[in-house]
Amino acid sequence: MRLAELSERSGVSTATIKYYLREGLLAPGRQINTTTAEYDEGHLRRLRLVRALIQVGRIPVATAREVLGHVDDDSLGRTIRLGAALWALPQGAEPDEEDPAVVAARREVDRLLAGLGWETARELSPLSPVHRSLVVAVAALIRLGYSWDAELMAPYAELMHQVARRDLDYLETHASDAERVETAVAATVLFEPVLTALHRLAQEEESARRYGL
Amino acid sequence: MRLAELSERSGVSTATIKYYLREGLLAPGRQINTTTAEYDEGHLRRLRLVRALIQVGRIPVATAREVLGHVDDDSLGRTIRLGAALWALPQGAEPDEEDPAVVAARREVDRLLAGLGWETARELSPLSPVHRSLVVAVAALIRLGYSWDAELMAPYAELMHQVARRDLDYLETHASDAERVETAVAATVLFEPVLTALHRLAQEEESARRYGL
Repeated sequence: MRLAELSERSGVSTATIKYYLREGLLAPGRQINTTTAEYDEGHLRRLRLVRALIQVGRIPVATAREVLGHVDDDSLGRTIRLGAALWALPQGAEPDEEDPAVVAARREVDRLLAGLGWETARELSPLSPVHRSLVVAVAALIRLGYSWDAELMAPYAELMHQVARRDLDYLETHASDAERVETAVAATVLFEPVLTALHRLAQEEESARRYGL
Repeated sequence: MRLAELSERSGVSTATIKYYLREGLLAPGRQINTTTAEYDEGHLRRLRLVRALIQVGRIPVATAREVLGHVDDDSLGRTIRLGAALWALPQGAEPDEEDPAVVAARREVDRLLAGLGWETARELSPLSPVHRSLVVAVAALIRLGYSWDAELMAPYAELMHQVARRDLDYLETHASDAERVETAVAATVLFEPVLTALHRLAQEEESARRYGL
Protein backbone atom coordinates (compact mmCIF):
# COMPACT_ATOMS: atom_id res chain seq x y z
CA MET A 1 0.00 0.00 0.00
CA ARG A 2 1.04 3.64 -0.46
CA LEU A 3 1.61 6.20 2.30
CA ALA A 4 -1.92 7.62 1.91
CA GLU A 5 -3.52 4.20 2.44
CA LEU A 6 -1.21 3.43 5.38
CA SER A 7 -2.33 6.73 6.93
CA GLU A 8 -6.00 6.01 6.31
CA ARG A 9 -5.89 2.45 7.68
CA SER A 10 -3.85 3.39 10.78
CA GLY A 11 -5.59 6.68 11.53
CA VAL A 12 -2.13 8.29 11.80
CA SER A 13 -1.53 11.42 9.66
CA THR A 14 1.05 11.23 6.84
CA ALA A 15 3.07 13.99 8.56
CA THR A 16 3.26 11.88 11.75
CA ILE A 17 4.18 8.73 9.77
CA LYS A 18 7.03 10.67 8.10
CA TYR A 19 8.18 11.81 11.56
CA TYR A 20 8.17 8.18 12.84
CA LEU A 21 10.16 7.14 9.72
CA ARG A 22 12.77 9.89 10.36
CA GLU A 23 13.00 8.87 14.04
CA GLY A 24 13.56 5.22 13.08
CA LEU A 25 10.42 4.00 14.87
CA LEU A 26 9.09 2.60 11.59
CA ALA A 27 11.20 0.79 8.96
CA PRO A 28 11.34 2.48 5.52
CA GLY A 29 8.96 1.15 2.87
CA ARG A 30 10.15 -0.63 -0.29
CA GLN A 31 11.20 2.18 -2.67
CA ILE A 32 9.32 1.87 -6.00
CA ASN A 33 10.70 5.04 -7.57
CA THR A 34 12.31 8.22 -6.26
CA THR A 35 9.06 9.61 -4.86
CA THR A 36 7.00 6.51 -3.99
CA ALA A 37 7.43 3.75 -1.41
CA GLU A 38 5.30 0.66 -0.80
CA TYR A 39 4.23 -0.41 2.74
CA ASP A 40 2.88 -3.76 3.96
CA GLU A 41 0.80 -5.23 6.81
CA GLY A 42 3.93 -5.33 9.00
CA HIS A 43 4.24 -1.54 8.68
CA LEU A 44 0.58 -1.13 9.59
CA ARG A 45 0.96 -3.34 12.67
CA ARG A 46 4.10 -1.54 13.79
CA LEU A 47 2.45 1.83 13.28
CA ARG A 48 -0.43 0.76 15.54
CA LEU A 49 2.07 -0.27 18.22
CA VAL A 50 4.01 3.01 17.94
CA ARG A 51 0.75 4.92 18.20
CA ALA A 52 -0.30 2.88 21.25
CA LEU A 53 3.01 3.60 22.98
CA ILE A 54 3.31 7.29 22.12
CA GLN A 55 -0.23 8.60 21.74
CA VAL A 56 -2.08 6.41 24.25
CA GLY A 57 0.72 5.38 26.64
CA ARG A 58 2.33 8.87 26.43
CA ILE A 59 5.76 7.26 26.34
CA PRO A 60 8.69 9.43 25.14
CA VAL A 61 10.03 8.73 21.63
CA ALA A 62 13.43 7.59 22.95
CA THR A 63 11.76 5.09 25.31
CA ALA A 64 9.51 3.83 22.51
CA ARG A 65 12.63 3.25 20.37
CA GLU A 66 14.14 1.17 23.21
CA VAL A 67 10.93 -0.86 23.69
CA LEU A 68 10.74 -1.57 19.93
CA GLY A 69 14.41 -2.62 19.88
CA HIS A 70 13.58 -5.38 22.38
CA VAL A 71 10.44 -6.41 20.48
CA ASP A 72 12.56 -6.82 17.31
CA ASP A 73 15.41 -8.75 18.91
CA ASP A 74 14.91 -12.24 17.44
CA SER A 75 17.89 -13.62 19.36
CA LEU A 76 15.82 -13.62 22.58
CA GLY A 77 13.05 -15.99 23.71
CA ARG A 78 9.51 -14.73 23.80
CA THR A 79 9.19 -14.09 27.56
CA ILE A 80 12.53 -12.29 27.63
CA ARG A 81 11.50 -10.12 24.66
CA LEU A 82 8.20 -9.35 26.35
CA GLY A 83 9.98 -8.74 29.66
CA ALA A 84 12.65 -6.54 28.14
CA ALA A 85 9.98 -4.49 26.38
CA LEU A 86 7.90 -4.21 29.59
CA TRP A 87 11.02 -3.29 31.51
CA ALA A 88 11.78 -0.43 29.14
CA LEU A 89 8.41 1.17 29.96
CA PRO A 90 8.48 3.98 32.53
CA GLN A 91 8.33 2.37 35.99
CA GLY A 92 8.22 5.28 38.46
CA ALA A 93 10.49 6.01 41.41
CA GLU A 94 13.38 3.88 42.70
CA PRO A 95 12.90 2.37 46.20
CA ASP A 96 14.94 3.88 49.04
CA GLU A 97 16.56 0.76 50.58
CA GLU A 98 17.26 2.59 53.86
CA ASP A 99 13.54 3.14 54.39
CA PRO A 100 12.04 0.59 56.86
CA ALA A 101 8.79 0.58 54.83
CA VAL A 102 10.75 -0.51 51.74
CA VAL A 103 12.50 -3.25 53.72
CA ALA A 104 9.15 -4.51 55.03
CA ALA A 105 7.55 -4.27 51.57
CA ARG A 106 10.39 -6.24 49.95
CA ARG A 107 10.06 -8.96 52.60
CA GLU A 108 6.29 -9.25 52.04
CA VAL A 109 6.63 -9.28 48.23
CA ASP A 110 9.26 -12.04 48.50
CA ARG A 111 6.98 -14.05 50.81
CA LEU A 112 4.09 -13.48 48.39
CA LEU A 113 6.01 -14.80 45.36
CA ALA A 114 7.30 -17.81 47.33
CA GLY A 115 3.77 -18.60 48.53
CA LEU A 116 2.33 -18.32 45.02
CA GLY A 117 5.12 -20.40 43.47
CA TRP A 118 5.86 -17.70 40.89
CA GLU A 119 9.33 -19.05 40.14
CA THR A 120 10.20 -16.82 37.17
CA ALA A 121 9.13 -13.71 39.00
CA ARG A 122 11.36 -14.77 41.94
CA GLU A 123 14.28 -15.60 39.68
CA LEU A 124 14.08 -12.27 37.82
CA SER A 125 13.35 -10.21 40.96
CA PRO A 126 16.87 -8.80 41.49
CA LEU A 127 16.76 -7.37 37.92
CA SER A 128 13.12 -6.66 37.27
CA PRO A 129 11.79 -3.08 37.33
CA VAL A 130 8.30 -4.57 37.54
CA HIS A 131 9.25 -6.25 40.84
CA ARG A 132 10.78 -2.96 41.98
CA SER A 133 7.61 -0.97 41.26
CA LEU A 134 5.57 -3.50 43.23
CA VAL A 135 7.91 -2.99 46.21
CA VAL A 136 7.57 0.81 45.87
CA ALA A 137 3.75 0.62 45.67
CA VAL A 138 3.49 -1.70 48.70
CA ALA A 139 5.97 0.45 50.67
CA ALA A 140 3.72 3.49 50.06
CA LEU A 141 0.79 1.57 51.61
CA ILE A 142 2.85 0.40 54.60
CA ARG A 143 4.21 3.91 55.19
CA LEU A 144 0.65 5.25 55.34
CA GLY A 145 -0.31 2.77 58.03
CA TYR A 146 -2.04 0.10 55.92
CA SER A 147 -1.10 -3.39 57.01
CA TRP A 148 -0.39 -4.87 53.56
CA ASP A 149 1.31 -8.23 53.84
CA ALA A 150 1.76 -11.37 51.73
CA GLU A 151 -1.51 -12.90 52.99
CA LEU A 152 -3.53 -9.81 52.05
CA MET A 153 -1.90 -9.56 48.62
CA ALA A 154 -2.18 -13.23 47.66
CA PRO A 155 -5.85 -13.16 46.51
CA TYR A 156 -5.20 -9.96 44.53
CA ALA A 157 -2.22 -11.64 42.86
CA GLU A 158 -4.33 -14.72 42.02
CA LEU A 159 -6.95 -12.48 40.41
CA MET A 160 -4.27 -10.65 38.41
CA HIS A 161 -2.89 -14.02 37.34
CA GLN A 162 -6.36 -14.88 35.96
CA VAL A 163 -6.33 -11.56 34.12
CA ALA A 164 -2.85 -12.31 32.71
CA ARG A 165 -4.03 -15.76 31.56
CA ARG A 166 -6.87 -14.12 29.65
CA ASP A 167 -4.40 -11.61 28.16
CA LEU A 168 -2.22 -14.42 26.82
CA ASP A 169 -5.22 -16.46 25.62
CA TYR A 170 -6.26 -13.38 23.66
CA LEU A 171 -2.74 -12.93 22.28
CA GLU A 172 -2.64 -16.57 21.18
CA THR A 173 -5.44 -15.85 18.72
CA HIS A 174 -2.80 -13.73 16.92
CA ALA A 175 -0.62 -15.35 14.31
CA SER A 176 3.14 -14.80 14.23
CA ASP A 177 5.63 -14.69 17.08
CA ALA A 178 6.70 -11.14 16.19
CA GLU A 179 3.07 -10.11 16.20
CA ARG A 180 2.53 -11.73 19.61
CA VAL A 181 5.32 -9.79 21.29
CA GLU A 182 4.15 -6.58 19.58
CA THR A 183 0.58 -7.21 20.66
CA ALA A 184 1.64 -8.12 24.20
CA VAL A 185 3.43 -4.79 24.59
CA ALA A 186 0.52 -2.85 23.11
CA ALA A 187 -1.80 -4.83 25.37
CA THR A 188 0.09 -3.86 28.52
CA VAL A 189 -0.08 -0.18 27.62
CA LEU A 190 -3.66 -0.31 26.36
CA PHE A 191 -5.32 -2.84 28.70
CA GLU A 192 -4.15 -1.09 31.87
CA PRO A 193 -6.45 1.95 31.46
CA VAL A 194 -9.35 -0.45 30.79
CA LEU A 195 -8.56 -2.46 33.95
CA THR A 196 -8.25 0.73 36.02
CA ALA A 197 -11.58 2.06 34.73
CA LEU A 198 -13.31 -1.32 35.29
CA HIS A 199 -11.88 -1.41 38.82
CA ARG A 200 -13.23 2.06 39.71
CA LEU A 201 -16.60 1.28 38.13
CA ALA A 202 -16.79 -2.00 40.08
CA GLN A 203 -15.94 -0.15 43.32
CA GLU A 204 -18.90 2.17 42.76
CA GLU A 205 -21.25 -0.64 41.80
CA GLU A 206 -20.29 -2.78 44.80
CA SER A 207 -20.51 0.18 47.18
CA ALA A 208 -24.01 0.97 45.91
CA ARG A 209 -25.07 -2.66 46.39
CA ARG A 210 -23.76 -2.76 49.94
CA TYR A 211 -24.63 0.69 51.25
CA GLY A 212 -27.08 2.24 48.74
CA LEU A 213 -26.34 5.51 46.98
CA MET B 1 -0.39 15.10 70.14
CA ARG B 2 1.90 18.00 69.23
CA LEU B 3 3.10 18.93 65.72
CA ALA B 4 6.41 17.07 66.20
CA GLU B 5 4.66 13.80 67.08
CA LEU B 6 2.16 14.23 64.22
CA SER B 7 5.15 14.62 61.90
CA GLU B 8 6.91 11.59 63.30
CA ARG B 9 3.86 9.32 63.19
CA SER B 10 2.86 10.39 59.66
CA GLY B 11 6.35 10.56 58.16
CA VAL B 12 5.45 14.04 56.82
CA SER B 13 7.86 16.88 57.69
CA THR B 14 6.62 19.70 59.95
CA ALA B 15 7.25 22.20 57.11
CA THR B 16 4.97 20.18 54.80
CA ILE B 17 2.30 19.84 57.52
CA LYS B 18 2.34 23.64 57.97
CA TYR B 19 1.96 24.02 54.20
CA TYR B 20 -1.06 21.66 54.19
CA LEU B 21 -2.57 23.65 57.10
CA ARG B 22 -2.13 26.94 55.18
CA GLU B 23 -3.68 25.38 52.04
CA GLY B 24 -6.70 24.18 54.03
CA LEU B 25 -6.03 20.48 53.31
CA LEU B 26 -5.75 19.77 57.04
CA ALA B 27 -8.03 21.30 59.72
CA PRO B 28 -6.24 23.43 62.35
CA GLY B 29 -5.38 21.72 65.65
CA ARG B 30 -6.97 22.71 68.96
CA GLN B 31 -5.06 25.83 70.09
CA ILE B 32 -3.60 25.27 73.61
CA ASN B 33 -1.75 28.56 73.84
CA THR B 34 -0.47 31.14 71.34
CA THR B 35 2.37 28.89 70.10
CA THR B 36 1.09 25.33 70.60
CA ALA B 37 -1.74 23.33 69.02
CA GLU B 38 -2.96 19.82 69.81
CA TYR B 39 -3.71 17.27 67.05
CA ASP B 40 -5.71 14.02 67.24
CA GLU B 41 -6.04 10.69 65.40
CA GLY B 42 -8.38 12.35 62.87
CA HIS B 43 -5.56 14.72 61.90
CA LEU B 44 -3.16 11.80 61.49
CA ARG B 45 -5.63 9.89 59.30
CA ARG B 46 -6.33 12.95 57.16
CA LEU B 47 -2.61 13.65 56.81
CA ARG B 48 -2.06 10.11 55.52
CA LEU B 49 -4.83 10.61 52.95
CA VAL B 50 -3.41 13.98 51.83
CA ARG B 51 0.00 12.39 51.48
CA ALA B 52 -1.45 9.48 49.48
CA LEU B 53 -3.19 11.87 47.09
CA ILE B 54 -0.38 14.36 46.63
CA GLN B 55 2.86 12.43 47.14
CA VAL B 56 1.85 8.99 45.82
CA GLY B 57 -1.03 9.84 43.48
CA ARG B 58 0.74 13.04 42.26
CA ILE B 59 -2.58 14.87 42.32
CA PRO B 60 -2.47 18.70 42.23
CA VAL B 61 -3.24 20.51 45.53
CA ALA B 62 -6.42 22.12 44.12
CA THR B 63 -7.74 18.70 43.01
CA ALA B 64 -6.87 17.18 46.40
CA ARG B 65 -8.87 19.99 48.08
CA GLU B 66 -11.87 19.13 45.87
CA VAL B 67 -11.58 15.39 46.62
CA LEU B 68 -11.40 16.09 50.37
CA GLY B 69 -14.44 18.38 50.14
CA HIS B 70 -16.49 15.44 48.87
CA VAL B 71 -15.07 13.08 51.50
CA ASP B 72 -16.16 15.55 54.21
CA ASP B 73 -19.66 16.23 52.90
CA ASP B 74 -21.85 14.45 55.50
CA SER B 75 -25.05 15.41 53.66
CA LEU B 76 -24.31 12.74 51.01
CA GLY B 77 -24.67 8.94 51.19
CA ARG B 78 -21.55 6.81 51.31
CA THR B 79 -21.48 5.67 47.64
CA ILE B 80 -22.11 9.22 46.43
CA ARG B 81 -19.31 10.54 48.66
CA LEU B 82 -16.99 7.83 47.38
CA GLY B 83 -18.14 8.45 43.80
CA ALA B 84 -17.78 12.22 44.05
CA ALA B 85 -14.27 11.81 45.45
CA LEU B 86 -13.33 9.29 42.72
CA TRP B 87 -14.83 11.59 40.10
CA ALA B 88 -12.70 14.50 41.25
CA LEU B 89 -9.54 12.48 40.52
CA PRO B 90 -7.84 13.22 37.18
CA GLN B 91 -9.57 11.08 34.52
CA GLY B 92 -7.66 11.75 31.30
CA ALA B 93 -8.96 12.92 27.93
CA GLU B 94 -12.58 13.57 26.94
CA PRO B 95 -14.01 11.23 24.26
CA ASP B 96 -14.59 12.70 20.79
CA GLU B 97 -18.24 11.77 20.11
CA GLU B 98 -17.78 12.22 16.33
CA ASP B 99 -15.16 9.44 16.30
CA PRO B 100 -16.64 6.10 15.09
CA ALA B 101 -14.33 4.23 17.52
CA VAL B 102 -15.85 6.20 20.43
CA VAL B 103 -19.37 5.43 19.19
CA ALA B 104 -18.52 1.70 18.95
CA ALA B 105 -16.79 1.74 22.36
CA ARG B 106 -19.79 3.41 24.03
CA ARG B 107 -22.14 0.84 22.51
CA GLU B 108 -19.96 -2.07 23.76
CA VAL B 109 -19.57 -0.57 27.26
CA ASP B 110 -23.36 -0.10 27.47
CA ARG B 111 -23.91 -3.72 26.37
CA LEU B 112 -21.31 -4.86 28.91
CA LEU B 113 -23.01 -3.08 31.84
CA ALA B 114 -26.45 -4.35 30.79
CA GLY B 115 -25.12 -7.92 30.53
CA LEU B 116 -23.47 -7.71 33.93
CA GLY B 117 -26.49 -6.15 35.60
CA TRP B 118 -24.43 -3.27 36.98
CA GLU B 119 -27.48 -1.06 37.53
CA THR B 120 -25.79 1.78 39.42
CA ALA B 121 -23.02 2.03 36.86
CA ARG B 122 -25.67 2.22 34.10
CA GLU B 123 -27.73 4.77 35.99
CA LEU B 124 -24.74 7.03 36.66
CA SER B 125 -23.20 6.55 33.20
CA PRO B 126 -24.32 9.86 31.64
CA LEU B 127 -22.58 11.70 34.51
CA SER B 128 -19.70 9.47 35.49
CA PRO B 129 -16.12 10.36 34.48
CA VAL B 130 -15.17 6.77 35.36
CA HIS B 131 -17.59 5.52 32.70
CA ARG B 132 -16.17 8.12 30.30
CA SER B 133 -12.56 6.97 30.84
CA LEU B 134 -13.60 3.37 30.18
CA VAL B 135 -15.12 4.48 26.86
CA VAL B 136 -11.90 6.37 25.98
CA ALA B 137 -9.70 3.37 26.85
CA VAL B 138 -11.84 0.92 24.84
CA ALA B 139 -12.01 3.36 21.90
CA ALA B 140 -8.18 3.44 21.84
CA LEU B 141 -8.13 -0.37 21.50
CA ILE B 142 -10.80 -0.39 18.77
CA ARG B 143 -9.01 2.38 16.85
CA LEU B 144 -5.83 0.28 16.85
CA GLY B 145 -7.63 -2.68 15.32
CA TYR B 146 -8.29 -4.77 18.46
CA SER B 147 -11.76 -6.27 18.42
CA TRP B 148 -12.77 -5.40 22.01
CA ASP B 149 -16.45 -5.97 22.57
CA ALA B 150 -18.80 -6.62 25.49
CA GLU B 151 -18.21 -10.40 25.38
CA LEU B 152 -14.43 -10.00 25.57
CA MET B 153 -14.65 -7.47 28.41
CA ALA B 154 -17.19 -9.34 30.55
CA PRO B 155 -14.71 -11.76 32.22
CA TYR B 156 -12.29 -8.87 32.90
CA ALA B 157 -15.13 -6.92 34.50
CA GLU B 158 -16.09 -9.95 36.65
CA LEU B 159 -12.48 -10.23 37.87
CA MET B 160 -12.36 -6.50 38.66
CA HIS B 161 -15.66 -6.92 40.53
CA GLN B 162 -13.98 -9.59 42.69
CA VAL B 163 -11.11 -7.18 43.30
CA ALA B 164 -13.59 -4.43 44.28
CA ARG B 165 -15.37 -6.81 46.69
CA ARG B 166 -12.04 -7.51 48.39
CA ASP B 167 -11.35 -3.74 48.55
CA LEU B 168 -14.65 -3.12 50.34
CA ASP B 169 -14.22 -6.16 52.64
CA TYR B 170 -10.86 -4.67 53.62
CA LEU B 171 -12.43 -1.25 54.18
CA GLU B 172 -15.14 -2.77 56.38
CA THR B 173 -12.50 -3.75 58.91
CA HIS B 174 -12.18 0.01 59.50
CA ALA B 175 -14.38 1.71 62.05
CA SER B 176 -16.19 4.97 61.32
CA ASP B 177 -18.08 6.03 58.20
CA ALA B 178 -15.82 9.04 57.65
CA GLU B 179 -12.81 6.77 57.95
CA ARG B 180 -14.27 4.36 55.38
CA VAL B 181 -14.74 7.02 52.72
CA GLU B 182 -11.25 8.38 53.46
CA THR B 183 -9.74 4.92 53.23
CA ALA B 184 -11.68 4.11 50.05
CA VAL B 185 -10.25 7.16 48.32
CA ALA B 186 -6.72 6.43 49.53
CA ALA B 187 -7.23 2.82 48.44
CA THR B 188 -8.13 3.77 44.89
CA VAL B 189 -5.03 5.91 44.55
CA LEU B 190 -2.72 3.47 46.36
CA PHE B 191 -4.07 0.06 45.29
CA GLU B 192 -3.94 0.88 41.57
CA PRO B 193 -0.12 0.87 41.33
CA VAL B 194 -0.08 -2.46 43.23
CA LEU B 195 -2.65 -3.97 40.84
CA THR B 196 -0.72 -2.69 37.81
CA ALA B 197 2.56 -4.13 39.11
CA LEU B 198 0.91 -7.47 39.99
CA HIS B 199 -0.65 -7.57 36.51
CA ARG B 200 2.72 -7.04 34.75
CA LEU B 201 4.43 -9.55 37.03
CA ALA B 202 1.68 -12.11 36.34
CA GLN B 203 2.06 -11.51 32.58
CA GLU B 204 5.77 -12.36 32.83
CA GLU B 205 5.17 -15.40 35.02
CA GLU B 206 2.42 -16.79 32.79
CA SER B 207 4.44 -16.13 29.63
CA ALA B 208 7.41 -18.02 31.12
CA ARG B 209 5.16 -20.96 32.05
CA ARG B 210 3.68 -21.18 28.55
CA TYR B 211 6.67 -20.40 26.34
CA GLY B 212 9.76 -20.66 28.58
CA LEU B 213 12.14 -17.76 29.03
